[in-house]
Amino acid sequence: MSERITQTVAAFLVGSRDEQIPQSVRHEARRAMLNWLGCAVGASHHATATRALEAQRPFFGPPQATVVGRRERADILHAAMLNGVASHTFDFDDTHLKTVIHPAGPVASAALALAEHTGTSGRNFVHALVLGVEVECRIGKAVYPSHYDLGWHITGTAGVFGAAAAAGKILGLNEQQFVWALGIAATQSSGLREMFGSMCKPLHVGVAARNGLTAALLAAKNFTSADAGIEGKRGFANVLSAERDYGAITDQLGDTWELLDNTYKPFACGIVIHPTIDGCIQLREAYQLEPEDIERIELTVHPLVLELTGKTHPRVGLEGKFSVFHCAAVAIIDGAAGEAQFSDARVNDPAVIALRHRVRADIDSTLREDAAAVRIMRRNGEVLEKQVDHAIGSLARPMSDADLEAKFRGLCEPILDSQRVESLIGACWHLDQADRLDRVTFLTVPRSTPPSLHAGAAPRLRAEHKLG
Amino acid sequence: MSERITQTVAAFLVGSRDEQIPQSVRHEARRAMLNWLGCAVGASHHATATRALEAQRPFFGPPQATVVGRRERADILHAAMLNGVASHTFDFDDTHLKTVIHPAGPVASAALALAEHTGTSGRNFVHALVLGVEVECRIGKAVYPSHYDLGWHITGTAGVFGAAAAAGKILGLNEQQFVWALGIAATQSSGLREMFGSMCKPLHVGVAARNGLTAALLAAKNFTSADAGIEGKRGFANVLSAERDYGAITDQLGDTWELLDNTYKPFACGIVIHPTIDGCIQLREAYQLEPEDIERIELTVHPLVLELTGKTHPRVGLEGKFSVFHCAAVAIIDGAAGEAQFSDARVNDPAVIALRHRVRADIDSTLREDAAAVRIMRRNGEVLEKQVDHAIGSLARPMSDADLEAKFRGLCEPILDSQRVESLIGACWHLDQADRLDRVTFLTVPRSTPPSLHAGAAPRLRAEHKLG
Repeated sequence: MSERITQTVAAFLVGSRDEQIPQSVRHEARRAMLNWLGCAVGASHHATATRALEAQRPFFGPPQATVVGRRERADILHAAMLNGVASHTFDFDDTHLKTVIHPAGPVASAALALAEHTGTSGRNFVHALVLGVEVECRIGKAVYPSHYDLGWHITGTAGVFGAAAAAGKILGLNEQQFVWALGIAATQSSGLREMFGSMCKPLHVGVAARNGLTAALLAAKNFTSADAGIEGKRGFANVLSAERDYGAITDQLGDTWELLDNTYKPFACGIVIHPTIDGCIQLREAYQLEPEDIERIELTVHPLVLELTGKTHPRVGLEGKFSVFHCAAVAIIDGAAGEAQFSDARVNDPAVIALRHRVRADIDSTLREDAAAVRIMRRNGEVLEKQVDHAIGSLARPMSDADLEAKFRGLCEPILDSQRVESLIGACWHLDQADRLDRVTFLTVPRSTPPSLHAGAAPRLRAEHKLG
Repeated sequence: MSERITQTVAAFLVGSRDEQIPQSVRHEARRAMLNWLGCAVGASHHATATRALEAQRPFFGPPQATVVGRRERADILHAAMLNGVASHTFDFDDTHLKTVIHPAGPVASAALALAEHTGTSGRNFVHALVLGVEVECRIGKAVYPSHYDLGWHITGTAGVFGAAAAAGKILGLNEQQFVWALGIAATQSSGLREMFGSMCKPLHVGVAARNGLTAALLAAKNFTSADAGIEGKRGFANVLSAERDYGAITDQLGDTWELLDNTYKPFACGIVIHPTIDGCIQLREAYQLEPEDIERIELTVHPLVLELTGKTHPRVGLEGKFSVFHCAAVAIIDGAAGEAQFSDARVNDPAVIALRHRVRADIDSTLREDAAAVRIMRRNGEVLEKQVDHAIGSLARPMSDADLEAKFRGLCEPILDSQRVESLIGACWHLDQADRLDRVTFLTVPRSTPPSLHAGAAPRLRAEHKLG
């Protein structure tokens, strides 16, 4: 390896100027932030987040940063960790499809806590977010899919670099310090896919955020690492992957932006069911469908849909996520498939059950994974059909800003009053104008302690992250 | 994999009773503790430790635990991390030769902070230390050498399990919680050999201590992981190693004790020079040698000695560790090779330089690595010879308790007054009788802030950990 990859990344990070980031990329960063924040607030009282918080509260340092969605404040390391955990708990955060990295989690969690504490401007925060996602996704691309196939949870393993890069930019590291920060990140890179289906999956995001932030803070004090943390003989890419393509890190660095390949999930369940839900919602809205008008729903889906989500009789909320039948029913009745549609109550609602029993699904192995066909037989004999070629939320049909706002409202309204929810939406769209981040983060704090919406949900968590 | 390895380890940890630990093992744990504590106190003002502390101090929680050798106190997570970093900074801590793990570092760092905070008795602390080392070394044996050869720093990657096991025992986890603690440890396992030669090598010990402690604290709140963190398809042993032998974990578990294979370094330099230093000190003491009596010193050494430590003209203290010539000279003059013999001043002392220039070394590839021959020609024509078959500190010739005390004094005296040093030695030998650990840890705090002995040593750190 003659090329110095870590050094090249460090030089890019030092040299990057705010004004070089295209407007489209800055806007995508704000969209990623809105989506990340909604996920983090929405899951902030879930058992996963609450147990992590209770385990760490006795060790909190000064109240430097907000644990979003909660009234507790923590030192920035714990805030970064806890916000990271919450933001991935619903598995509803953003996805960089080329690497299956959930990019915002590690980066935004680290950068927001540090920015809030240091009085960083919104503009510089957005810049740091862009750079963190860029580094994380490029390092991920260099080792994907080999690295992922070996069993690494790439959001954690690559995320730590992104967190270090973003935090380092906020701290103003010099080039040598960035080399060290990336090296200290590399040597903490961790997270096993074995953990999918347990609370450790979202923990990986929190750990990556905290460890990346730690790496930048250590480097800022001239705590040294090896110079080639990424590409060294015993560095990240050689030890944690069987194959590697360093060009994915360095080619067109600063000219292309990974954030433009970011996607957002419209529905709080595995991505394979999304085309079906999309089709149902489109028909519902086009024809003002009422469930009692419907004789039968016939779905044509990719084989993976029934393999992964073929549960016909879900009994608890989580099982609803693994039932394409439940998803089609709530899509027709509620016009949505957010966390609210996967509560125990919704899964056991007689109207939902009644419609669910009238859903049939056939597989068609010629379909792409983001396609599906929905056919609805009305009781009056009318037949309605919708072919979905690319589900909403795919790169080909991205969620609009309004879609993201609606998703945000659905996630936050159980936690925050609607005034704060609307203020937060506005604050995210105008992030570049915020002179300090605490003007944004205080809006994520409920005026009163909200009910722990998911208390008692723990036993059902084992399967929750299966699709992420 | 039909056998449930993680579950077996968890059941062992829950079931282990203090009275089942043999006296010889308990005594070895006290020896390991004395050695670990000396290393941690000795390096507590080194640039590595100081920079780590300065980076993290703004985020310290309540003053729950001692940062040994210093007047600062920290929450237990930061104390565990900082004590771990300090204890491996000199690379002078214990070695489990079968795995090259430095066992005490991650385990004692986590357990001491937690025990101090929770008012754990010395007896229970020793029990936790024994169990932590047992789990760490057995998991290490299951993947060594393949895992190490891939590029993993096994003290970090296996150490996190040991820290979780010891902390979990102190917290009184049940079997399911231990399964989770081991899983949360597995998914944080990290540390790359690329970092040898930088401050990150000792950082791995601190990170393993903090992450293992975090794993136990999370599990105590029923934060879940997968059930097969060690042996699962995408668990630790499969993802981080090309080969694995689970029998090394489960065979005779509870009947044999890895601590009995622990060794201690008598000299503050790479182990390959130890037989030479040993022989020189033995001749010095047998014949009351004075440097001016010596015409010439002829060494016969294993080829690795000159390959790794063949530096004939060391100019700074650290380079002295890579000079068998310097080591032989200080062994004759000082009768020691502790940190004091590797100061800049000692390396540049005219008497040391004069004797160093009269040392010759020949290689003999038939020698074992722990053997050497020393031949001294006196000016009076007399020839003295010493053949060392097994260097002091090897398993065949372990350091005595008195040797460990002398090493401890050499490490601690620059930091603590001699009254505290002697009290600490007594406290370690009587650890089982301590009703609380803070009766021990307060003795590690200097009565006044000692000079930062190694301030300015940073640029020389790059090569410091090359041999560890």
